[in-house]
Amino acid sequence: MIQKLVDEIVKKDAPIVVGLDPMMKFIPEHITKKAFEEYGETLKGAGEAIFEYNKGIVDAVYDLVPAVKPQIAMYEQFGIEGLIAFKKTVDYCKEKGLVVIGDVKRGDIGSTSAAYATAHLGKVTVGSKTYAGFDEDFATVNPYLGTDGIKPFIDVCKEEKKGIFVLVKTSNPSSGEFQDRIIDGRPLYEIVGEQVRKWGEDCMGGDYSYVGAVVGATYPEMGKILREIMPKSYILVPGYGAQGGKGADLVHFFNKDGLGAIINSSRGIIAAYQNPAYEKFSSLNYADASRQAVLDMKADIASALHK
Amino acid sequence: MIQKLVDEIVKKDAPIVVGLDPMMKFIPEHITKKAFEEYGETLKGAGEAIFEYNKGIVDAVYDLVPAVKPQIAMYEQFGIEGLIAFKKTVDYCKEKGLVVIGDVKRGDIGSTSAAYATAHLGKVTVGSKTYAGFDEDFATVNPYLGTDGIKPFIDVCKEEKKGIFVLVKTSNPSSGEFQDRIIDGRPLYEIVGEQVRKWGEDCMGGDYSYVGAVVGATYPEMGKILREIMPKSYILVPGYGAQGGKGADLVHFFNKDGLGAIINSSRGIIAAYQNPAYEKFSSLNYADASRQAVLDMKADIASALHK
Repeated sequence: MIQKLVDEIVKKDAPIVVGLDPMMKFIPEHITKKAFEEYGETLKGAGEAIFEYNKGIVDAVYDLVPAVKPQIAMYEQFGIEGLIAFKKTVDYCKEKGLVVIGDVKRGDIGSTSAAYATAHLGKVTVGSKTYAGFDEDFATVNPYLGTDGIKPFIDVCKEEKKGIFVLVKTSNPSSGEFQDRIIDGRPLYEIVGEQVRKWGEDCMGGDYSYVGAVVGATYPEMGKILREIMPKSYILVPGYGAQGGKGADLVHFFNKDGLGAIINSSRGIIAAYQNPAYEKFSSLNYADASRQAVLDMKADIASALHK
Repeated sequence: MIQKLVDEIVKKDAPIVVGLDPMMKFIPEHITKKAFEEYGETLKGAGEAIFEYNKGIVDAVYDLVPAVKPQIAMYEQFGIEGLIAFKKTVDYCKEKGLVVIGDVKRGDIGSTSAAYATAHLGKVTVGSKTYAGFDEDFATVNPYLGTDGIKPFIDVCKEEKKGIFVLVKTSNPSSGEFQDRIIDGRPLYEIVGEQVRKWGEDCMGGDYSYVGAVVGATYPEMGKILREIMPKSYILVPGYGAQGGKGADLVHFFNKDGLGAIINSSRGIIAAYQNPAYEKFSSLNYADASRQAVLDMKADIASALHK
């Protein structure tokens, strides 16, 4: 799957992933109105509105980008109905040929971590049958519990030809509270980065490992060092756009081959129509605004990379 | 909710939480057979079997213990149908008067962490209505992302009178890979423990804070130090039983008031009937075996605490 992701990035010339992190306040009124008319102001109505909203965006951008990254928390808050919308979104994106990165930030130990890996990347056995639960292509994973938490994911990835992105240095202001603390003269995020390199060594899928890392665009200097520590790991970079990261900050997340990083933008794309810069698009044309925002992001990154 | 948990621990004289972590191999054949006859070897059939199995255990132990801790991964692997079984389990346990600790180990930042907090502890708005998604009483939370990840949970807890347990030192063999690394002369888990104390200072619900901690029974010496670092935080202690923790190891997790810790056992209780020690119980009487295992665990802990 990492090779498919790389191939699609090259083919579409876009190291971009669209974060499908729907919030009710982003969804245009014509969509919520229709869903509520059909299902009432219920969790099912919310789930329906979320899926229709996502579908519009996906239809408008799927030919431009290699991947999407639905953030499961935004669906999980609507309970079962929200998770049905998550599953429908994953399935729809895959039908459109997109690589789906489940931003689930799961992490536990042993058989429990194996169950999370099964839920999101693998297949579960029921009697004599097997089924996939959510069936994303990649999942994000939290490293705090150590190898016991990561290994079960890697085992499933090996079996299913899928991949993970391990949180190394997150994009938020307080990420340094623990991640930047100095251990033997080096910050914790470097130690985690080294572990990601080791975990990924036997997990090559072409030029890159299917054990990747998450490093926030908001910390470009740290990204530069982590790029060197984990040369074979793809870096998933959140924090571009709404969180303050700019194209110029992204240069050092890439390798000299022009590959090795994929930049996420969520609300900057999916809620572009609410941004004054795109006010010529009305809420009825929200998906066209998203398409324009992708094109602008693509140009911004290309210019930063001097393409 | 922390006060209710403490009251129930005192009333039932049992600092014990039953981990409802169902695996298909634990479920007696008469239950799976019935579920598969009705729904086939499907995800729905699996979900039905899981819920019926849980229900039997809960009916057999609810008068003995204050709380249960369903591990959501074990349900999530069965996709939507598994999560329906999770939700039914949470609801059923609450009907029986049990405190429900959702072992979800979620953790993200800002609005995403707020969405997870809403999903598991809070209420979500749909138009003019509000709904609860999963509605546990407590949730476990991963601290790797720092205060940005924890604060949104605390905000929801304050509003809804609920609580969290933050992972500090986990019970698994490799937990030391990052958690034990030395920072300014002290291991990371102590730094996280100090942060838990600070996060919990303004969150008192009686004598204890509703910001608790997870510390594995497998590391009793570390538990002793963490007990002193976080005197007002309840400690949720996994790792008893199947993972090797014994009653005698638990003494230092408690405060001098005999409170401050709640010990989890999962397969040691829910799959007791498969343990040679309980072979007099057949699989038909699996719930009676679970009840006996709770009584034995209660005696083991009481003896360790010299009650």
